[in-house]
Formats: sequence, structure tokens, C-alpha cells
Amino acid sequence: MSLLVTGSIGIDTVKTPHGSADDVLGGTAVYFSFAARHFTSVRLVGVVGDDFPEKHRAILARREIDLAGLETRAGSKTFRWSGNYHGAMNEAETASVSLNVLAEAGPKVPAAFADSEFVFLANTHPVLQRELLSQLTSPKLTVCDTMNLWIDNERDELLKTLSMVDGIIINDAEARQLTGCINFVDVGEALLSLGPKFAVIKKGEHGALLVTADGPTAIPAFPTKMVIDPTGAGDSFAGGVLGYLAECGAHDTAALRRAIVRGTICSSFAIEGFSLDRVLQIGRADIDKRVREFTGMLRIE
Amino acid sequence: MSLLVTGSIGIDTVKTPHGSADDVLGGTAVYFSFAARHFTSVRLVGVVGDDFPEKHRAILARREIDLAGLETRAGSKTFRWSGNYHGAMNEAETASVSLNVLAEAGPKVPAAFADSEFVFLANTHPVLQRELLSQLTSPKLTVCDTMNLWIDNERDELLKTLSMVDGIIINDAEARQLTGCINFVDVGEALLSLGPKFAVIKKGEHGALLVTADGPTAIPAFPTKMVIDPTGAGDSFAGGVLGYLAECGAHDTAALRRAIVRGTICSSFAIEGFSLDRVLQIGRADIDKRVREFTGMLRIE
Repeated sequence: MSLLVTGSIGIDTVKTPHGSADDVLGGTAVYFSFAARHFTSVRLVGVVGDDFPEKHRAILARREIDLAGLETRAGSKTFRWSGNYHGAMNEAETASVSLNVLAEAGPKVPAAFADSEFVFLANTHPVLQRELLSQLTSPKLTVCDTMNLWIDNERDELLKTLSMVDGIIINDAEARQLTGCINFVDVGEALLSLGPKFAVIKKGEHGALLVTADGPTAIPAFPTKMVIDPTGAGDSFAGGVLGYLAECGAHDTAALRRAIVRGTICSSFAIEGFSLDRVLQIGRADIDKRVREFTGMLRIE
Repeated sequence: MSLLVTGSIGIDTVKTPHGSADDVLGGTAVYFSFAARHFTSVRLVGVVGDDFPEKHRAILARREIDLAGLETRAGSKTFRWSGNYHGAMNEAETASVSLNVLAEAGPKVPAAFADSEFVFLANTHPVLQRELLSQLTSPKLTVCDTMNLWIDNERDELLKTLSMVDGIIINDAEARQLTGCINFVDVGEALLSLGPKFAVIKKGEHGALLVTADGPTAIPAFPTKMVIDPTGAGDSFAGGVLGYLAECGAHDTAALRRAIVRGTICSSFAIEGFSLDRVLQIGRADIDKRVREFTGMLRIE
């Protein structure tokens, strides 16, 4: 089924204990799309400035990624983020952020995308998330992410958005902050009470927890020594989850459990290099192979 | 096969966000034994003072726990620990600790226990761990735990002990401290380089990681809302692991993977009440039922 993502397209500068990368392609919608594309074609909706480098545009140009919703706004500058990771690299320390074009009006959903069935609203202002949602005629599954900024400053708007989506994929610290709960099963149930029918709590190196009306499912991260740059891990995870669900055309608990395994594996590749370095080297066969390895690891009688 | 544990038998006072318990039965060997007893009979080696309450002794008196190695030392006082847990309760904050009899000479292994095949050396001074080990005639599997105190102050003795055991079960922070590694697969491999053939890193609410020559296995914690008191979770885990291995008479990677599931489930019960409150209510059928629930949760195609 058709899959649409809206989110950021950015220029990142990242430093980790393993090295650094300057002015590389990043952004939530980018990482999401490069994971989801292995499962289904992706409709990307986002906006960049007229400073967006040609070399980054060339990376985005993939058969499975429809760029009809990529607006290049004259006179505006592309979103930029710079961050550092230390130690276990569980959290990015933001060095600088320039919203630039993301602080302006949101992108429009092209008419050809209006019938999108599976939809991921990556982190952005909750009003903008609803504005994007309102341009879709027949969504079958809508899922959003959010961040501490909106939890702190736009709580009412965020709750309104949450009451309108089918699912939320959110990181652990922000999920605790949003719900006021500590135990992650409590956190998940509190998220469901806000509207979504499922909640996925991302715990970085500790894996993910899915909570639905059928109860909780805990999935560890794929155990690997190759952690070069965690940037985009969460969005690659979401891309694998939504991509797989759109491929199946399902979103029951069983499908969600399988989808989380795919998301886990997509993020395990994303962190093996800076920017999209590693992601660009792999194909569906690599994902399927690691999925088998991972589900085999978890199959214990 | 026969299973021997040596460790502390203590009187605990614990405060958590869910309440408190004063002067209750605790100690590493106690929690270990009450988990392991579901799988095999347990030979307990430990020492208490003559102040050890009769009511605690009555709790210990179980058909499956052989107390021939429980020494009551006249003129000595029982080990006491008092601690508090906050927030996610991942770490105990020690309020006070009185080593008492644990600061004196270690207990002796009774002649009838000398032929023990499976052995768990709970956390204590690494010299004492070796002294206990030296009293065994034909151990088939020896596993130890340790703590920050010995990592800091008795590193050489600890390394000597590690070079003599088959496995280590250790918590995440201490494993990082001992190895100097951050990534847990690196941590596990560094532990193997010190002697043990397997390492199990306990990550509290985030589960456990097994590392053997066959590679890593990540297992999440059993997802539950019922977390009343985490005291003894790690030793209950170890008791489930060793108890199951002794029952199987095996310790290959496949057996270890199954054992870690049993350890996970034993610890999930231990944290559902203060002291042994919950542990005393359950039988093997309860463990087996939750094991099926847990392995079912992890079975994803």
C-alpha cells in the first residue's frame, strides 16, 4: 500500500567517538525513507532551501522514493543540525540547530499523494502534523513521533494530534516526560489512553517496547559492536516499521511485532556508518538475512 | 546434577516508591536458592551470626534447600544491608551496610558438599571465592559474580579468580567498570578474554546479554508493571540460570540461552514483592507458564 512520510531533510554535522562527518545529508524523513524503501515505495513530503547541495539531492534520487512532494523554497535555507555523541552514545548532545526553512510554512501534500494510505508524521510542530494529516483523503494508518520541545511548550496541541493518530513511535525519555510514568508498560498504556491504538517506545541500545490492547512486547536491540553514529537510528527504525506494515497492508499486533523486528534491523544498519554511508550499501537481502539471524536469536524454547 | 551456592544470608531493610520492609530475610545466596530450588535441590554454604532470627531460619527450611553448609557463628552478628530505590529503581542506593560475620573467616564447604558439580560463587571477596572453589573435588561448571568494591580494590585477586571460573554473571555498570569497554558486546568479549567461557551481563529492566564464543544473545526483561522491590533480582536471575543448567546437566550455548530465559522469569517474580514475599507464593508451574508466555512473545517470524 502507499506510504507517505513528512519530516525534515537536513544538513548534519556529527561527531562521535569514532570520527566525524561535516555537512552530510540527514533529517528524519531522509532516514525514514531510506529504510522504508526496501519494503515499499515512499512518498516524501518535505522542504529544503535553495542552498540544498546538488550532491545531497542526487543521493535522494532513488526509484523507490517519490520526490514530487520535495519543495525547494527560493530564498530560504535548509535545516541544519550539529551534534555530538559520547560514551554509550544513547543520547545526542545538540551543538547547534538552525531551523531555517522548517520555521516557515510547512510543505504541501501534492494532489497525487492525497490518497496515501500509510502515513508517518515525523517529529515536527503538532499543529503542522495535523495540517499535513488534513490534506489526506483516506489514510488507513497514521503514526507520529514527537519531541521534548512540543511536550514542554505545545502540550495541548500535541494531545490534540495524538487523539487523531493510530500509533505513536517515540523515544523512552520523551515518552516518560509526556506521560509522567516511569515503568515502560505504564508509559505505553498511558500513551494508549491519549488516543493511539499502539505505542512503540524506542530505548536505543536497549531495544523497543510495543504496547497494544493485546499487551506489551519487548524486543532487544540487535547486538552489534559496529556503532559508529546513532544519528537517524530512530527514524530508520520507524521507516522499517512503517515500510513493512505498508508492504503487508496490515497493522494488527502480530504485524506490528514483525514490523518492529524489521525496524530494529534497519536501525542496526543505519548506525554502522555516518549519515547514509552504510545504508546506501545494503539491499533487501541484507535486511532479510539479519532479520533471520535476529529472530533466530530470539527463538528459545 | 548437584548445585552449590555460596553467598550472603542477610537481614535487609528496604524502601522503594511502593513501600518499605524492615529487617526482612535477604542475601545473595538466599535469593539464588529460592529461584534455583524450582529446578534442582540446592546446597547452600553461608554463615550467619547467633542473632539470626528464628523466623528467617524457618523460611530457609525447605526440602529442596540443603542447609548442611549454613554455619551459625556464636558471638558474631548477621550481615545487614539497608537500601533505597528511586524512580525507575534500576540501582539501589545503599543507606547502610554492616558486614558483621561476612568480614570474618569464610564458611567451610561440608564434606558432603565437596562433590558438587554446578557451583555459583555469589559476590564476595575474590580470595574467599577461590578458597571456596578449592574445597570442591570435581566441579563441572563454576560461575561467579562480583562487585565494584573488588573491581576497585582487589583487581589482581579478582582477575585470578576470573581465570579459574567457567562463567561470570555480572551487572552492566560493573561489567563496564571491570573491562573499560562501553558497548556491551565488547564488554562481553573482554570478559571472555579474562578466562570465562561465557559472560552474562545483567541490565536490570533492560534484560540481559549472553556472550559466548558463538556470539551474543540479547534477551529483554519480562515486561511487567509489577515492580515492587528489585532487591535480589540479579541473584534470583542467577539462581534460575544455574538451577536450570544443573537440571539439564548442560552448559553449551543453547542450554545457556534457555537458562537465561528461566533466570529472567525467576527475577520477574522476585521483584513483585518485598524480600521473598512473592517468591514464596509460586511453584514450578507458575515459572513454566510465564516462560511459555515470554518465549511466545519473543517468537516472531
